[in-house]
Formats: sequence, structure tokens, C-alpha cells
Amino acid sequence: METFSVRTTARNELVNIDGAVSAALEAMGAGDGVATIFTPHTTAAITINENADPDVCRDWIEKLCRLVPQRESYYRHNEGNSDSHVKSSLVGCSEQVIVRGGRMVLGTWQSVFFAEFDGPRARQVHVAFTPGG
Amino acid sequence: METFSVRTTARNELVNIDGAVSAALEAMGAGDGVATIFTPHTTAAITINENADPDVCRDWIEKLCRLVPQRESYYRHNEGNSDSHVKSSLVGCSEQVIVRGGRMVLGTWQSVFFAEFDGPRARQVHVAFTPGG
Amino acid sequence: METFSVRTTARNELVNIDGAVSAALEAMGAGDGVATIFTPHTTAAITINENADPDVCRDWIEKLCRLVPQRESYYRHNEGNSDSHVKSSLVGCSEQVIVRGGRMVLGTWQSVFFAEFDGPRARQVHVAFTPGG
Repeated sequence: METFSVRTTARNELVNIDGAVSAALEAMGAGDGVATIFTPHTTAAITINENADPDVCRDWIEKLCRLVPQRESYYRHNEGNSDSHVKSSLVGCSEQVIVRGGRMVLGTWQSVFFAEFDGPRARQVHVAFTPGG
Repeated sequence: METFSVRTTARNELVNIDGAVSAALEAMGAGDGVATIFTPHTTAAITINENADPDVCRDWIEKLCRLVPQRESYYRHNEGNSDSHVKSSLVGCSEQVIVRGGRMVLGTWQSVFFAEFDGPRARQVHVAFTPGG
Repeated sequence: METFSVRTTARNELVNIDGAVSAALEAMGAGDGVATIFTPHTTAAITINENADPDVCRDWIEKLCRLVPQRESYYRHNEGNSDSHVKSSLVGCSEQVIVRGGRMVLGTWQSVFFAEFDGPRARQVHVAFTPGG
């Protein structure tokens, strides 16, 4: 298992982590198998989305923040981040990516993103590799 | 593969299953690798969320039930649980957790939860372990 | 790793891919372990849902399209498919299914579906197998 850090700069933000995941796989000597990319936080997530037009990420955040706004009259958790926990759980704290010859098999437009929902913060991401066909 | 049961007591509910998953990993003699925690139901899910303040789980359920209410004028499925299927598919029927030395690598505030969306019922959860680095 | 194609016929659609995934597992000589079913597109997803009453899939699509409509005044991405990217990321581009003796361990009512959110199109799905207990 390898661990790397991500520094976020906004309350809600998508950070491309393709480079860090690839470096982790190389450090583990990964061949053919599956990478599990997991963040150990309950107000953040890992997702796969388009890496070409930055407006795709921007629209994604905007839509998510309107579906799950920060304040709702019925929230009881007193830290003001119930929305962050909901977003984290809906998007999910891990992704699994197929690996061939040590490299992630992603589509042309796909990248792996760290999704921050309660930033800015210093965050961690773990990468594990399970060999297979 | 190990299987355990979960008894739920409400239509929508989060049940902490850390202990049962840990016992399943121990029964399988798990070392380093990845656990796949999977529920074979289409009106339930597996998720990872905060285990400290119970209001986080309560707010999560409340928000999810407002985003996806039980009744919508356009639902056609005649069992009255179309919402349960939507929630199940959005949250997802499995989680993958990295395992080191037989123990799940979770963040301080993370726990694995069984998410009931059409209870109360007796439910099942499968745990598989794939070795890796 | 095995790859197969899916031909979709509508903008939003669920296509049952149990048969194609099972064939991929057989072609790989899968025994006991976990299958990773991954689609390399950012406007599609993989999900598990009920395979019995087609109204469940129909209600699922209807609800998702109302939660995340195609047009929002604040979308900036100029291809008119920001909603497709949001749906793809929320539902997720992969599923993991436990495999025993080469066969997926699914519940009675569960099937694996390819979820199209920007069709009709020709799409791809990858299947990898990681052995385990």
C-alpha cells in the first residue's frame, strides 16, 4: 500500500490525482491487476470524470452543491457539514481501476479525481494493488 | 467468502457492520489485500460514513429520503419501493476496503454501514478477500 | 482482461450485461475471486439493479433524469451533456462482484447493467478478474 497527500484550496473541489496514483503503482511494482484508490475521510471522495474541459468539473460541483446544499432546516449535526458527509457517501470514498503492465486502463477522457467536500484541507489517499488477469 | 446476516428495524436505516466484517476477514485468514463487502439485495446498499456523531447518519438518511421520496406521481413499479431501488443503485451495493495484516485500513471516523432502504428485514452481506500489496 | 461492446438505443438507458460479463469471466478461466466491471466512458456507468420488473429500471431512469435534468441555467460546458457527466460520476463507472467457481455471486433479483447517459452510442466494457477467497 502507498499513501500520498492532497492539498485542497476550496470547500468543494476536484483535484486530478492521475500522476500520484501512477507513481504509487510504480512504487509498488504493479503489473496486471486492479488498483484500489481509497480516501480515509468522511467528507471527501474519489471519482472518475472528464479531464478535458474544466467546465465539466465545475458544472459537476455546481450541480452537486445544489442537490445537496450546505444548509437544510432539518440537519441536526452541529458541525455544519452534514452536506459534506452526504456527498462523500453518494460519490463514494474509493474507485477501482484495472491495471495492465503497471498502468491504469482509463478511457481517453477519464481521470481519477480527489473530491473535496469540506475544504480547504490537507488530505490523504491510499492506493493498493491486487494482482489478477 | 463469508456471509453474515443483518437485522434491520426501520424502512431506512444505517447499521454499523465493522465488527461483522472484521470477524469475516479473520475467519478467512486475511492478510494484506482488499476486502469486497457486497450485499445481494436491490433495495439496500453498503456505504462508508462517520461513526462518531449519530446525527451524521440521521441527517444522511433524512436528506436521501427528501432527494428520493417514496412516492412520485410518475413511478410505475407497483410494489411502492421504486425509491428503494434508486437509493440502492445510487449508494451502491458494495464497498472495497484495503486490508493490512487482516485489519481494515479505515480512517479515524470511518465505519462500514449496511444501508437499509426497504426495511425492516433480515438481510445478508458477503465478504470476499483478494490478496495484494 | 476482456472487453466487450454494448450498443445503446436511447439517451438514457439500462442494458443488462450479465451474459457478456459471464462470458468474459469464462474466457479468462476465472475461479474464486472478484470481478471488476469497468466502462471507460465519462457519460456512462455500471450499476446493479433489479432484473425482474422492467418498471424498476424505467422508474430509476425517470427519477435520475429529474434529479439531474439535461439543462440547467448555470451549466457552462458547451456540449449539452453536463448532466451525463454528473450521472456517470454519481452512479460510478465500475462495479465489483464476488465470483465463485467462475460465476458471479449475485442476489436472486440482481443483474449488472450498463447505464447509458448520453446515447445512443457504441460503448465498451472491460472485465478484470482478481483471484481470492
